[in-house]
Amino acid sequence: MNWRATVLTLFPEMFPGPLGLSLAGRARERGDWSLQTHNLREYGLGRHRAVDDTPFGGGAGLVMRPDVVDAALSGVLGAGDVRPVIYLTPRGRRLTQADARRYAAGDGVVLLCGRYEGIDERVLEAHGVEQVSIGDYVLSGGEPAALVLLDSVVRLLPGVMGSERSGLEESFSDGLLEYPHFTKPADWQGRAVPEILLSGNHAAIAAWRRASAETDTRARRPDLWAAYASRTSNNALPGTAGHRN
Amino acid sequence: MNWRATVLTLFPEMFPGPLGLSLAGRARERGDWSLQTHNLREYGLGRHRAVDDTPFGGGAGLVMRPDVVDAALSGVLGAGDVRPVIYLTPRGRRLTQADARRYAAGDGVVLLCGRYEGIDERVLEAHGVEQVSIGDYVLSGGEPAALVLLDSVVRLLPGVMGSERSGLEESFSDGLLEYPHFTKPADWQGRAVPEILLSGNHAAIAAWRRASAETDTRARRPDLWAAYASRTSNNALPGTAGHRN
Repeated sequence: MNWRATVLTLFPEMFPGPLGLSLAGRARERGDWSLQTHNLREYGLGRHRAVDDTPFGGGAGLVMRPDVVDAALSGVLGAGDVRPVIYLTPRGRRLTQADARRYAAGDGVVLLCGRYEGIDERVLEAHGVEQVSIGDYVLSGGEPAALVLLDSVVRLLPGVMGSERSGLEESFSDGLLEYPHFTKPADWQGRAVPEILLSGNHAAIAAWRRASAETDTRARRPDLWAAYASRTSNNALPGTAGHRN
Repeated sequence: MNWRATVLTLFPEMFPGPLGLSLAGRARERGDWSLQTHNLREYGLGRHRAVDDTPFGGGAGLVMRPDVVDAALSGVLGAGDVRPVIYLTPRGRRLTQADARRYAAGDGVVLLCGRYEGIDERVLEAHGVEQVSIGDYVLSGGEPAALVLLDSVVRLLPGVMGSERSGLEESFSDGLLEYPHFTKPADWQGRAVPEILLSGNHAAIAAWRRASAETDTRARRPDLWAAYASRTSNNALPGTAGHRN
């Protein structure tokens, strides 16, 4: 059985989007994963297939109705479908690499993309929907977030990347930013690569990379650094690396 | 002059992707913003247009060459182009709503999308490139992250959303998750909306929403809650709301 993504959205045309190309696109052609979209509009009410209404308590914008979202979820989820249902929302807990690994280890995901002000909270509770945020910024809808979540997961599926890459990811869990990268030419516009990287001394290179990762994490991500420092004594640092784009 | 996005990528076919539809797509058709893509491959070296090479110091994967990225940036950036050049990478500082507002207030952005293990650090330094991460997870490349960054910015451009929406965003800066939303029907499958929302008592509704936002932030985002609590005394809470999907 391949890994299955099901997306409920008002804009099915946004999928597969970037996931139709490159790594994810080739993996989908091979059958490593599949993607189905369902248009929430099909479950809308009345002649205009309304999916939203004004918020109780007042305020700008419209809220997606619980009955419409319920009908869509009930229509799409077969009996025995144990995949997590995930609503992409800035109200959710933040997506991490550990989540991506957990989703990749399962049968697939069902992604619910909101538009407007969001989705009525009751239907999220009724279906035990996981609320997940990809970051602390506001998007026009859940669709770009769904594309990001799927990209992060699909690359971790068996066979999608070479096995040496899978090893790299595990070290992301060290909680440090990755060290900086350098390639040819060794001297570029008067900027030389750090000499140690040309030394062939593997232990010294590993130590330099670890120190660089720590320096960059401290400077760029004080939040990560604080968590890392509270977990790890400086005498017993694990290996770094593996946080790639 | 409209707001200009320029994207340097090995996969120009991934754009505009979801940005070609809905809010961002209509805004682009109106000329509120423009999107140009440039294929980094055009600046590659030799018969095979190579853009990458093995990392100095060893390790898995390939690194994008500084001379190739430099040629691309130099070829694309005209004299007097003061737009920020942004490299999407998990090594960057994290994108926030404040960044989105800052980018929206400028002339546009130049986005550099990496693939493989990343880009040689020297060319990023030489061009003063901003390194930005959309979240603590690993993607197959910078392209999905670029789509997210652009979506977060484009919706803030003048005229793209109704003016009442712009007001909402400002309150994102309160540092709380948004309160939960409810719409019709008032009673759905035995689940009633919180009675206070039907009361018409605007002050009581605002207080309930603020308390809900605090409760959810504390439960779902202890990091945000800690930052919020350290900034704000509980006797002088600003209004909440405005964090929508």
